[in-house]
Amino acid sequence: MPRTPQTLYVYPMSNYTMGIKQPKYEKDGSVRERMLRMEQQYKSEGMRRHVEGILLAHCRGHVHLLLFQIGNTYFKLFVKKNFCSFPGGRLKGLESETDGLKRKLTNKLGTPNPKYSMTWTIGELISQWWRPNFETVTYPYIPPHVSSPKECRKMFLVQLQSQGLFGVPKNLKLLAVPLFEMYSNAHRYGATLASLPQLLSRIHLVIC
Amino acid sequence: MPRTPQTLYVYPMSNYTMGIKQPKYEKDGSVRERMLRMEQQYKSEGMRRHVEGILLAHCRGHVHLLLFQIGNTYFKLFVKKNFCSFPGGRLKGLESETDGLKRKLTNKLGTPNPKYSMTWTIGELISQWWRPNFETVTYPYIPPHVSSPKECRKMFLVQLQSQGLFGVPKNLKLLAVPLFEMYSNAHRYGATLASLPQLLSRIHLVIC
Ligand SMILES: [Zn+2]
Ligand SMILES: [Zn+2]
Ligand SMILES: [Zn+2]
Ligand SMILES: [Zn+2]
Repeated sequence: MPRTPQTLYVYPMSNYTMGIKQPKYEKDGSVRERMLRMEQQYKSEGMRRHVEGILLAHCRGHVHLLLFQIGNTYFKLFVKKNFCSFPGGRLKGLESETDGLKRKLTNKLGTPNPKYSMTWTIGELISQWWRPNFETVTYPYIPPHVSSPKECRKMFLVQLQSQGLFGVPKNLKLLAVPLFEMYSNAHRYGATLASLPQLLSRIHLVIC
Repeated sequence: MPRTPQTLYVYPMSNYTMGIKQPKYEKDGSVRERMLRMEQQYKSEGMRRHVEGILLAHCRGHVHLLLFQIGNTYFKLFVKKNFCSFPGGRLKGLESETDGLKRKLTNKLGTPNPKYSMTWTIGELISQWWRPNFETVTYPYIPPHVSSPKECRKMFLVQLQSQGLFGVPKNLKLLAVPLFEMYSNAHRYGATLASLPQLLSRIHLVIC
């Protein structure tokens, strides 16, 4: 028997308050720098493990995805440089995916006062991407005859609390993009983002 | 904690034998005919429920998707007319998705001698598509302000036996398309098929 689809409770955007906190800068100024740093880390630590959280909220029943715009050049950056879009980051050493993603979400979206920080409940794996070389291109499978991919990126669904406070780094913008706006808009959002409506279609979304 | 990803055992293509059986013709000669028939059925039976099976096998470790080509015009048909690609079909009355998909798989791919027919193990829901109107366009969500979609199409992963006999209808071709060939090839295969590598990336595929 097929397993029951995962249920995700989706709350109104207006249940969340956006605070502003200290900026979080990207570590690299260019793609070249980033790829070089990746290569150095690969030598000492092996395959990079990257995790990202898919956060949802709704506006009058329309499901929206939360994602970061980096300055005004976000889309360009994403498409051309494959920089982060969803909140997330690299796992340390033997850190588990769940622990690491929670740490990254708190780092990127938690409030400076931990008393008000949200509890992140990590849900199902949504998709997985492999980087065969120290280049921007990634695939949702290990391409033929690639024996040692350089990075594995995993996207996980995140169950948000019914309400709460986000701390948004000053230099980033937190966008809420409707699923229907993202769908088949690879031209604007890139293939990874544009396929999210398909990837989420199997999830039982409960509009609260 | 996120649930463990579903495991699927993928066997070599060469473990399966393809027999030929009586042809299975499409009921409609044109899109217009199909949409008219859908509209009539909707009036008497309500929303159409359609299920499809995703069947995988491998060639020297490369995962392939099994799908039907209808005559030589398959791709054209799929893209322009949204005809069936994966084996499947419409559920009857209150029939369950699992029972209905097994029935359809046996009908489309079983051997005429039931003694040799395969056992289909229905796995997870992979994606879901909605048809808002009696038109070819479908979406992986219910579009805004659509209250009564006309069809819901669900794709399920199917665990094949380690070996066996397929009965392929004489007028259809069973293709095995590598995942890497399908990926980001929406131009050729259409958006639904081209997104399958992403949709399957979360599944733990064990190459046997
Ligand atoms: Zn990153
Ligand atoms: Zn090969
Ligand atoms: Zn059909
Ligand atoms: Zn609206």
